[in-house]
Amino acid sequence: MIDPTLIEQLVEFRQVRNWEQFHKPKDVAISLSIEAAELLEWFQWRTDEQIKQQLASDKRQLLEDELADVAIYLSYLCHDLDIDLTQAIKNKIVKNDKKYPIEKVKGCADKYTEYS
Amino acid sequence: MIDPTLIEQLVEFRQVRNWEQFHKPKDVAISLSIEAAELLEWFQWRTDEQIKQQLASDKRQLLEDELADVAIYLSYLCHDLDIDLTQAIKNKIVKNDKKYPIEKVKGCADKYTEYS
Amino acid sequence: MIDPTLIEQLVEFRQVRNWEQFHKPKDVAISLSIEAAELLEWFQWRTDEQIKQQLASDKRQLLEDELADVAIYLSYLCHDLDIDLTQAIKNKIVKNDKKYPIEKVKGCADKYTEYS
Amino acid sequence: MIDPTLIEQLVEFRQVRNWEQFHKPKDVAISLSIEAAELLEWFQWRTDEQIKQQLASDKRQLLEDELADVAIYLSYLCHDLDIDLTQAIKNKIVKNDKKYPIEKVKGCADKYTEYS
Repeated sequence: MIDPTLIEQLVEFRQVRNWEQFHKPKDVAISLSIEAAELLEWFQWRTDEQIKQQLASDKRQLLEDELADVAIYLSYLCHDLDIDLTQAIKNKIVKNDKKYPIEKVKGCADKYTEYS
Repeated sequence: MIDPTLIEQLVEFRQVRNWEQFHKPKDVAISLSIEAAELLEWFQWRTDEQIKQQLASDKRQLLEDELADVAIYLSYLCHDLDIDLTQAIKNKIVKNDKKYPIEKVKGCADKYTEYS
Repeated sequence: MIDPTLIEQLVEFRQVRNWEQFHKPKDVAISLSIEAAELLEWFQWRTDEQIKQQLASDKRQLLEDELADVAIYLSYLCHDLDIDLTQAIKNKIVKNDKKYPIEKVKGCADKYTEYS
Repeated sequence: MIDPTLIEQLVEFRQVRNWEQFHKPKDVAISLSIEAAELLEWFQWRTDEQIKQQLASDKRQLLEDELADVAIYLSYLCHDLDIDLTQAIKNKIVKNDKKYPIEKVKGCADKYTEYS
């Protein structure tokens, strides 16, 4: 999933600042979860209609920045722990396919919350 | 950032289950933040040393699954809002480069927390 | 805010299990944020109407348990750091009163998101 | 758990600003989780030693404010859903007592992560 050129840039960004020392995996996982909360903040208090309007406003840029922050910490974590994210996603899709068989969950969409 | 083949698979996974109706952007952002917390749970209470041991144990698979879950919701959100995540990351790196000039932050690494 | 008898019980619960050693403030803060995500999970994917129905169902008990978990970690953190939560809330209300003056924010309720 | 005078103040604070309309339970739960992340941010990147120093510095006030924010949203949610938080905590302690029997978990403290 991670573009190798981008991950190189991220690793270099950190290296030239001598910041690897702070990126212990637990701290990176904390940061990922904090960034996910900041992303959620973009949606906080808004109705679906207001969100649609915001998406077409200059606040869209803020959302893109928050999404990037989540992706950046996710990339660091996978890089540092030597995890192949594309493969991990593939494996998870196979698992989810078995966990939520189409014939069982389709048509009882109102039960989605039970299955997810 | 998102592998086009994978995102196609994810979109199809959701479509054949008739689950698009649940994926309002705000709810997907909520899910992303919940998955980030589940990822963090993998590190909860552990010291850096215990984390290292866990990484070499069969619990590594759980971590990979949690990372995949975060990536999956991130992918859905970018897909649904038509956001080019690779471009968003590139833009964010440029911004961060200006925000944290090397000459200013390097060598005062103990001030990292002030800058990030 | 914290009932002294309850906090005593919580501290004893932890002490007899020899679990104080795990409750470093940073780890308790992590746990608080994980529990807040589990609380949010109760609301995940649901519309306001479905939430109302859930509140009247036997799932209400799950919600009460999640709220208790958040409160328990909040109580531990305040206890361990010797913070008077009631006083902290009082101080915050005074600050918020100044930050959001009634005459300014009332009547432009649609700007709530800008002020909070 | 919630001091009745304080909750009255919080409810009035919201009422005079005409902000009840925004406090749908799902949105309050979102806010609680965002505030928990902001609290966690206070600990982000810091070692236990640095946290101890911060606690003795003027940054302590920031921590108290974040704790208050978490408590405030927790209070609103319990108030609005008519949940007796003190009773919920009591019930949870009883459950936890059964779930983690002392004789089983004490002395194998290194297995704490398995039980919590």
